Amino acid sequence: MASSALAVIRVSGEGSLQLLSKVVKGGRPANERPGNTINRCIMRDGDEDVDEVMLAVYRAPRSYTGEDSAEIISHGSIPVIQRLLSVLTRCGFRLADPGEFTQRAFLNGRMDLTRAEAVNEIVRARTDRARALALQRLGGAIAARIKAAREGLVELRAGLEVAIDYPDEVHEGDGLSATALGKVIALLEGLTRTYRQGRIYQEGVTVAIAGATNSGKSSLFNAMLRQERAIVSEVHGTTRDWLEGLVSLEGIPVRLFDTAGLRDTADPLEAEGMRRTEQVLSGADVVIYLVDSTRGTNVTDDALLARHTGPVIRVWNKVDLPGGSAPHGFIPLSATTGEGLQRLEAEVASSALGGAPDDSGQPLIDSLRQRDLITRALAALGRLRDAGAQGVSADLLAVDLADAMDALGEITGEVTTAEILERMFANFCVGK
Amino acid sequence: MASSALAVIRVSGEGSLQLLSKVVKGGRPANERPGNTINRCIMRDGDEDVDEVMLAVYRAPRSYTGEDSAEIISHGSIPVIQRLLSVLTRCGFRLADPGEFTQRAFLNGRMDLTRAEAVNEIVRARTDRARALALQRLGGAIAARIKAAREGLVELRAGLEVAIDYPDEVHEGDGLSATALGKVIALLEGLTRTYRQGRIYQEGVTVAIAGATNSGKSSLFNAMLRQERAIVSEVHGTTRDWLEGLVSLEGIPVRLFDTAGLRDTADPLEAEGMRRTEQVLSGADVVIYLVDSTRGTNVTDDALLARHTGPVIRVWNKVDLPGGSAPHGFIPLSATTGEGLQRLEAEVASSALGGAPDDSGQPLIDSLRQRDLITRALAALGRLRDAGAQGVSADLLAVDLADAMDALGEITGEVTTAEILERMFANFCVGK
Repeated sequence: MASSALAVIRVSGEGSLQLLSKVVKGGRPANERPGNTINRCIMRDGDEDVDEVMLAVYRAPRSYTGEDSAEIISHGSIPVIQRLLSVLTRCGFRLADPGEFTQRAFLNGRMDLTRAEAVNEIVRARTDRARALALQRLGGAIAARIKAAREGLVELRAGLEVAIDYPDEVHEGDGLSATALGKVIALLEGLTRTYRQGRIYQEGVTVAIAGATNSGKSSLFNAMLRQERAIVSEVHGTTRDWLEGLVSLEGIPVRLFDTAGLRDTADPLEAEGMRRTEQVLSGADVVIYLVDSTRGTNVTDDALLARHTGPVIRVWNKVDLPGGSAPHGFIPLSATTGEGLQRLEAEVASSALGGAPDDSGQPLIDSLRQRDLITRALAALGRLRDAGAQGVSADLLAVDLADAMDALGEITGEVTTAEILERMFANFCVGK
Repeated sequence: MASSALAVIRVSGEGSLQLLSKVVKGGRPANERPGNTINRCIMRDGDEDVDEVMLAVYRAPRSYTGEDSAEIISHGSIPVIQRLLSVLTRCGFRLADPGEFTQRAFLNGRMDLTRAEAVNEIVRARTDRARALALQRLGGAIAARIKAAREGLVELRAGLEVAIDYPDEVHEGDGLSATALGKVIALLEGLTRTYRQGRIYQEGVTVAIAGATNSGKSSLFNAMLRQERAIVSEVHGTTRDWLEGLVSLEGIPVRLFDTAGLRDTADPLEAEGMRRTEQVLSGADVVIYLVDSTRGTNVTDDALLARHTGPVIRVWNKVDLPGGSAPHGFIPLSATTGEGLQRLEAEVASSALGGAPDDSGQPLIDSLRQRDLITRALAALGRLRDAGAQGVSADLLAVDLADAMDALGEITGEVTTAEILERMFANFCVGK
């Protein structure tokens, strides 16, 4: 809990407005006020005033949760918040579980599970691109595609049912339209392919700048950060290990590391620094490897880099100075003038995304849960396609089809269990 | 700017609802909605949706500022907030200055300056007592007393005016009622005496625990913290220097320091630690000095403590173990069993407050500005009393009286200048 200018405390549930009225003074009692109104009042603890607040009242079903509920907008200092929570607890409220408001919204039919997950995603978004993608999901873009796929499967099932009910009147395989099935599979495959990029826009990547001392690492680090006015923090230790900054690269949240120079050394303190540099490099999703173009590559660099298994982007730095032109596979750059910086950043972004950014406008999946369920549906549909081609009887085909429909139903929450919900909402932030 | 589950963005001013309507989608346009309503809608940037928000609309004069205004309750991630601020700026809003909303509330007659200052004070309150005191001021308790004092002076002035207008009909000094003046002076003196305690409840004090190694400092530190579930942070350095915790002692926000043991040493590293301990001690408002009762005091302790000029509370620790009884001036304590802890804490509190806590129920002043103005009023009233006693003519007395009334008027803002307001609101938090 941190202090701020304002705090928002939510209460929800049947009878919540009656309970609240007991500790509110001023204006009409909360339980007699119409929904979607907001008024100034005083929160009380017995005879003592706790704070002047704005109280928003919502009436079922026109609220976030679909229940009677209220929002108390109070002053944001910690003693105020603590005292208000204490008053509310004593008058009969309990603290919400993480994600409980959103879970209730789902249970009361206010949103499906893909939208519920998107609530958490938009709160956690760290770049504008991540925000836009989460909002697209919050608007129901994933749900719409899953619904389309499910409708395709409903039609397939109708065909199969005819084949089951009137087995003598149809030929083998007749019940299953291969074309219609292929369309659903293509739709779901397209969606599942977006997962990697969706995840990266939401969760971000780590990028490390490596290279010999004086290859221009710090200049590049600063150049990449300045554009974004990011926060730089120096990590202290026995030796200067690395600098770390947060930056948005083409919409990807990037933790950028400026490491100590790579070199072979006998000095134990420097050797420790090198060990830590290698640790950072091995944990990085992408390594930018800088070479001073006026000095060229050397054997030590190559040996040290060879140990890194992830993508390495090779950069020929200081092209503003006289020197040889960039060898094959190197990006020419001047970290000081900024020449080549844009190309480098695009390269880092597509390296992190595993390809060009998806600009098809389709929603990108960020949820591992959704991806896994689509994968399960696709596996069932693959079996269905094979079995259909082999002329398996319609009632057996119906089993795989039902499995695929279940998986899709679980994505939106049409099919669900208490356990699934509990797991899903456990990593929500409190108050949502 | 830190991310959270929700963010509240305020806009205010004539035409603000019209401006806002341009970037809001869904429901009735903001400028056509009645005041004190709150509805779900979408904030837009051109054709792009930015976030789903709750939008509260207020109509002049029924708003915080007294102007048409609105509150946008959005998701709290930084990209959402940044994008919303960018949209609002581009459609014609500008960022508010610190305290500007409250300043406008003052200028529009929604609150006097003592209440305006209390808004900032309640946001910054760190203990429940500080919250209660700030809320009392926010409710107008200071303003009411200043008003009473001013009314007393208005009556005095009426008396003086009679004396000025009809100089031949009254005797010298007749115009000034010494009793009435004495009452006003007593009221203001009572109020100004509350400043020290008011300030301490709001701003807090630092308390350092000192004593020889093994005198039980850490046990006491933990005992004082555990009761409050405070945050403990270890300060890192070449040697362990001190531990720091935040704690509420009888409503006073206390930064509590557990220092390294006091001792004479030749080891340069330990000497550095000692130097830092002495630094903490010299910066402390109150020092708790622990003596291990099973070992008694020693000469080094006394020498080191002698350098500290502020209040020192001497504690005879480990009374649960066999040992001599506490010498005069020492508080007996067992940091392990908690015996004597309450007495020690009360002692620390009254030491910090410079006396017993004010429980008269009267408002305590926290504002240096208010205190200085009361002092100025009191100085003028003192001159007035002396001059009155010496039979100075009524028109000269009226000058001092006017000065006192001006000072009181400035406290509430009845008398003010742009410069005074600017200085006052400059240290407000943004958004208030």
